[in-house]
Amino acid sequence: MNPVFSDLPVTVFETMSRLAREHCAINLGQGFPDDPGPEDVREVAATALRDGYNQYPPMMGLPSLRVAIAAHYGRHQGLDLDPETEVMVTSGATEALAGAIFALVAPGDEVVLFEPMYDAYLPLVRRAGGVPRFVTLKPPHFRIDEDALAAAFSEKTRLVILNNPLNPSATVFAEADLSLLAGFCRRFDAVALCDEVWEHVIFDGARHRPLMALPGMRERTIKIGSAGKIFSLTGWKVGFVMAAPHLMRALARAHQFLTFTTPPNLQEAAAYGLAKDEAYFTGMRAGLARSRDRLAAGLADLGFTVLPSAATYFLSLDIGEADDVAFCETLVREHGVAAIPVSAFYETGGVRNLVRFCFAKTDATLDAALDRLAGYA
Amino acid sequence: MNPVFSDLPVTVFETMSRLAREHCAINLGQGFPDDPGPEDVREVAATALRDGYNQYPPMMGLPSLRVAIAAHYGRHQGLDLDPETEVMVTSGATEALAGAIFALVAPGDEVVLFEPMYDAYLPLVRRAGGVPRFVTLKPPHFRIDEDALAAAFSEKTRLVILNNPLNPSATVFAEADLSLLAGFCRRFDAVALCDEVWEHVIFDGARHRPLMALPGMRERTIKIGSAGKIFSLTGWKVGFVMAAPHLMRALARAHQFLTFTTPPNLQEAAAYGLAKDEAYFTGMRAGLARSRDRLAAGLADLGFTVLPSAATYFLSLDIGEADDVAFCETLVREHGVAAIPVSAFYETGGVRNLVRFCFAKTDATLDAALDRLAGYA
Ligand SMILES: CSCCC(=O)C(=O)O
Ligand SMILES: CSCCC(=O)C(=O)O
Repeated sequence: MNPVFSDLPVTVFETMSRLAREHCAINLGQGFPDDPGPEDVREVAATALRDGYNQYPPMMGLPSLRVAIAAHYGRHQGLDLDPETEVMVTSGATEALAGAIFALVAPGDEVVLFEPMYDAYLPLVRRAGGVPRFVTLKPPHFRIDEDALAAAFSEKTRLVILNNPLNPSATVFAEADLSLLAGFCRRFDAVALCDEVWEHVIFDGARHRPLMALPGMRERTIKIGSAGKIFSLTGWKVGFVMAAPHLMRALARAHQFLTFTTPPNLQEAAAYGLAKDEAYFTGMRAGLARSRDRLAAGLADLGFTVLPSAATYFLSLDIGEADDVAFCETLVREHGVAAIPVSAFYETGGVRNLVRFCFAKTDATLDAALDRLAGYA
Repeated sequence: MNPVFSDLPVTVFETMSRLAREHCAINLGQGFPDDPGPEDVREVAATALRDGYNQYPPMMGLPSLRVAIAAHYGRHQGLDLDPETEVMVTSGATEALAGAIFALVAPGDEVVLFEPMYDAYLPLVRRAGGVPRFVTLKPPHFRIDEDALAAAFSEKTRLVILNNPLNPSATVFAEADLSLLAGFCRRFDAVALCDEVWEHVIFDGARHRPLMALPGMRERTIKIGSAGKIFSLTGWKVGFVMAAPHLMRALARAHQFLTFTTPPNLQEAAAYGLAKDEAYFTGMRAGLARSRDRLAAGLADLGFTVLPSAATYFLSLDIGEADDVAFCETLVREHGVAAIPVSAFYETGGVRNLVRFCFAKTDATLDAALDRLAGYA
């Protein structure tokens, strides 16, 4: 048994979703929306399934989807991507992350990780033989500190993994923070693996700035996106990877042995959806921002301290002296609401005063959760 | 860059499919059927996509599919599997293989591989830090030899990977060969990773015998199956893994960080399909056997030496003194038919006289390919 995997716990998302089912709790833990996703996108997939091609698509993805991805990021983020050599489709963003880490990290390579971090990063880095170097980001601003970067980077740094917008903090990195990081990547000749799955779920008129667009980063950034997050269809598991050809070559090798390919019908629907006009994205953001505001106001009314949320499906409570894990255990078992303890995203940071809630839910779900939370405030 | 992946070539299947497209060749290389797959199974998936749940299913798979998998293998192979603790759904058999290898192999562990072998096995074993030990199986019978096993197994053997029925040889291992292997697994306390994706594609009245059913193997076998192969829907990428709970625990940890989960609509359709009665499976086999016989007879008429095919979508030609890679290059470029050189499945074995053809095609496709091959015989 390889101890890196066999000694791991089940992910906190799965554990909380199971507890939610067992206790008939309202699940504001794992990040998935109540919204069933755009009907037209689902219809394209259904038609392709019924009448279309159901055999292996090309390993890199359907040509139509790769073209749609390049066009989409050109339009939305000003990136200039060649669909043939710089775009690949994966079985969700998780597979894209796993592939990139296995492709790039050799045993002994150092990998800079920002905590809070998505729970897949660290086990994958360890399983690839990488040596993690942590940079701890602290509430409420989760800013990147130059001294912390200087302490984490070294001649052995091969990769740095950045999640922007950042889950669970619901923050967007400032241009200054991105520039600082880009400078270190250039200086130490490191590759940046950017998990940007929340790039479209960003509020209050802010725009996502891809790290790849910063000076000197085009050739050394791997950008990951997710159709599941863009279209509120988290079960689809259609991810995208974008990188310069010399990186893509290695990423493709990893992909061919992790899943090889992704269902063609879902790919076709993602290609259709990515061409949607600005109104879809604006509407999706406006709907989620309304839900965010509803939950935030309700929680504040109950007396909780609510941190701001600039992006993602999430907001957090600052629970002060209480322990987040104990808080969440009691919440799901006794009050029937599932949430995620933010300490699950820290390895060394010792942050234990934050609890994350998913607000991508109907008003009825949010109101019912607030009713239950009234007893706990 | 990790050299295990970055130094690899593109898979032979992808390469030949690309060449086939470029040369407008009939693609008898990569194994996928012309048959569009059962209409009712596709309809269940389409309806689930349109009207059903499109968010994350449980990480281990939809409960309904896990129950259907256990029932299916109980009915067809006499296995007694607990759907809760011994069955998991993956994003295709490739992900199941990758997860098992990453979960079980620690750096320095030895892994016994039979060649010919599917091209994903060796890079995954190497990337996991495993040390391969090869057992070479030779045409025309591809039997397992006791002395070769004795030379390959050692106290360091952690895993042995068996593909049965065997692609590309289209052979089914005899009970005596399986018993021999099971004895070595028990003696050296090794786990058997059984890629049994071809278990239903088996001809002439033969029955598949899962290695897991042999004495002492229940606790030490990981069995992998594939909805794509069972239902001729190779693009769906819905795989199954079955293993005793102590192994499944580690497999689940790997799965949660490779893809986490698999589209729920496709899972629902697979659950529906696995409950099909014997007539479906008999009909599927009979149709493929007819296609096999048509291609084999046509090739023999042209003067080629055709090896028998007892299972899979494939049969091979013995091309004698010619080199299989050169043969396939000329075939695709000059005669417009893509096939696979069997040497691509060997690392050390030196077998270069076999060329594999996929016969899971319409009569029209097979006849057109035979026409083109007439010029090459
Ligand atoms: C793959 S389950 C986790 C989903 C998610 O992004 C989250 O809840 O943070
Ligand atoms: C994943 S492409 C390979 C398909 C296959 O099983 C084969 O052609 O051998």
